Amino acid sequence: MENSIQILLLIFIMFTAAKVFATVGERFRIPAVISEIAAGILLGPYLLGPFLLGFAPVEGRWLPPEWLVALAQLGAIVLLFNVGLEVKLTDLLRVGWTALLVAIVGVVIPFFLGYGLLTLMERSQTEAVFMGAAMVATSVGITARVLQDLGVLKTVVATVILGAAVIDDILAMIMLAVVSGLSEGIDYIQMGTVAGLAIGFTLFILVVGGRVIRGVTRGVQRFVPGNPYFPLAMIICLGLAVAADKIGIAAIIGAFLAGLVYTEEELAGGLKEKISALYEFLVPFFFVAMGMQMDVRVLGQRNVLLLAAVVTVLAILGKLVGCSLGAYRLGWRPAMQVGMGMVPRGEVGIIVASIGLGLNLISQETYAVVIIMVLVTTLMAPPFLKVLFARENAIPVGGKAETSPPSKPSSPDLL
Amino acid sequence: MENSIQILLLIFIMFTAAKVFATVGERFRIPAVISEIAAGILLGPYLLGPFLLGFAPVEGRWLPPEWLVALAQLGAIVLLFNVGLEVKLTDLLRVGWTALLVAIVGVVIPFFLGYGLLTLMERSQTEAVFMGAAMVATSVGITARVLQDLGVLKTVVATVILGAAVIDDILAMIMLAVVSGLSEGIDYIQMGTVAGLAIGFTLFILVVGGRVIRGVTRGVQRFVPGNPYFPLAMIICLGLAVAADKIGIAAIIGAFLAGLVYTEEELAGGLKEKISALYEFLVPFFFVAMGMQMDVRVLGQRNVLLLAAVVTVLAILGKLVGCSLGAYRLGWRPAMQVGMGMVPRGEVGIIVASIGLGLNLISQETYAVVIIMVLVTTLMAPPFLKVLFARENAIPVGGKAETSPPSKPSSPDLL
Repeated sequence: MENSIQILLLIFIMFTAAKVFATVGERFRIPAVISEIAAGILLGPYLLGPFLLGFAPVEGRWLPPEWLVALAQLGAIVLLFNVGLEVKLTDLLRVGWTALLVAIVGVVIPFFLGYGLLTLMERSQTEAVFMGAAMVATSVGITARVLQDLGVLKTVVATVILGAAVIDDILAMIMLAVVSGLSEGIDYIQMGTVAGLAIGFTLFILVVGGRVIRGVTRGVQRFVPGNPYFPLAMIICLGLAVAADKIGIAAIIGAFLAGLVYTEEELAGGLKEKISALYEFLVPFFFVAMGMQMDVRVLGQRNVLLLAAVVTVLAILGKLVGCSLGAYRLGWRPAMQVGMGMVPRGEVGIIVASIGLGLNLISQETYAVVIIMVLVTTLMAPPFLKVLFARENAIPVGGKAETSPPSKPSSPDLL
Repeated sequence: MENSIQILLLIFIMFTAAKVFATVGERFRIPAVISEIAAGILLGPYLLGPFLLGFAPVEGRWLPPEWLVALAQLGAIVLLFNVGLEVKLTDLLRVGWTALLVAIVGVVIPFFLGYGLLTLMERSQTEAVFMGAAMVATSVGITARVLQDLGVLKTVVATVILGAAVIDDILAMIMLAVVSGLSEGIDYIQMGTVAGLAIGFTLFILVVGGRVIRGVTRGVQRFVPGNPYFPLAMIICLGLAVAADKIGIAAIIGAFLAGLVYTEEELAGGLKEKISALYEFLVPFFFVAMGMQMDVRVLGQRNVLLLAAVVTVLAILGKLVGCSLGAYRLGWRPAMQVGMGMVPRGEVGIIVASIGLGLNLISQETYAVVIIMVLVTTLMAPPFLKVLFARENAIPVGGKAETSPPSKPSSPDLL
């Protein structure tokens, strides 16, 4: 009992801190993901944790307690399920080749910049691959929010950004599938096997998934009248997460695929609202726990700060150059807008880094560098986007400026 | 990582088992609480747990892992928050004295039957008090469901049952507050202090709560436009749970009070739907964990089975006689219907027993006896109610039989 009450107190403090930080941040247009990570860093074992929560590093390293691992894991799964729910595969076919090109070039360049930097620094090949992978995925929620606020969500540029961000998510997931299979060193045969398994698993789920879900739902409803959608969705989401792990790729990829499959179904039975309630309750534990694992003491080392600065600049340039190149056909200013829109990194980069940290494949320093890169890219993109689009209203692309807010944003922001 | 994946697998198995059992049980009209406890007993450390989940007793006793304690605790809190949400204090004023009398007599008699039995058996005073307290609270969800199915939810009898069950819940909470303060032996001064604190805390929350919630909600909305209802409700619910524990009463009482306060507010911002999503996800972990803690091996001891039989009979007779006495003014058949309607015990009895088990104040045997009592009373009441109400349709109370299902049940079933 003592123990369970102590856990309850910590849950209360962490949840409240996350929501208070997110609300105050919201006031200043700071995305919730940033505020919640900041709450985690502050409450974490390397700052206030030892005094407030009884969290303190042992022999220089802190491992989150089992119950927090469970809550954060559930948070990550619900988060990725939700990311999957936002992706409409059928919509992607309409966005065309520009988005595909933007996504691919925008994934390849940052990956090799990160990988190359750490290789030059003579870090291990595995750590270099993890750094590259963490620099890949754009977090579209933040950009979508800014575009919506600016009332430009229906322009060509916005459509390309949103489409590319979705493809980019899928590419990042494939990359995560491959790197999460790297338990000891790099083995090209193993990498190929994992990539094959990941792609096979994805195709299998996408082809068979919808039919299975419809069949099972109908079967359960015939057996007992009622609304089985939400429990069934959670069972499928958790089940695919476990299955993904069993074939050697990250569990959250299973959750993402479950979301992709459900997206194509009509979301009956208030499913979306119910998932969003779980999201609001569980996801803060994920971001707070991610913040808590950042050892702020490494920031005292000058080379870590230097590395963080270089990585952040490369992360920005990588997307800005890569995605602008991909969108060159739109003209240079729209291409720049696309590039800037793709700069913010978010949850996927953090997940990649935390998997590497959990497997002891990347160091505390590298983890801190990734967190800083995510925080900076996410914070800097919105003001730059506003500047780039402010001129837009003067010289509109496609002949007419759109200033009225769209009635239905095609991709509601997640964060 | 290994660890977090192992936890995820167990979460998947437990959640799926709970939902499959609940769905199959539903087909045979068995309440979900029963099916989920059964799933827990089956998957638990004393049956399949060692083979399926790696859960096995150590030195004859099993303690749930930390992450399961956290999920079950959150489940219990959401459960009691929801029970509180179903209680409309203002409605109670209309139900009148009969319901009050039914509730009080129906609480006092079972308590003294349980307390007396264990005292006669020369068990400790504390254990006797816990047994009495575990026999007190009616689980109205099951009865409400049956009454709704029979289309008699608007009769006088149903109104008295639902009103009395609500008062009974409140009395059980006060009793739980008192017994959860009994850490070592019985001390009347301490009991009085805790009872005073519990009542003071309750009154304070009820008087001030609504105003505080309205004020804070408005304040947050002025600060940041949006929908802060759900996170705020969770913060208040968790916060009151922690506060209840700090003043020495059970944490779930705080959650129950939070529910009571919210009930009087308009439940804006889709709050009810969001709480119900958390309910559907978290509460199964509570019931499964409760089932898992039942050591089925004690059922091999003849005296435990005998005690379970005697306690179950006393639990049935206690409510049947006590509540019928309270409702004597309605005539003997309606009084019997009220008595039978109050027989099912549920979550509160189990919570009382699990607190006793956690504090080492009651034995494994007594815990098993309470679980059996809850299972049997819950399973037997519906058929008897149907028989008692079937005659009802032939000789209706109040002059007219009501056979059409009510359009709006006044108390939706929880379980």
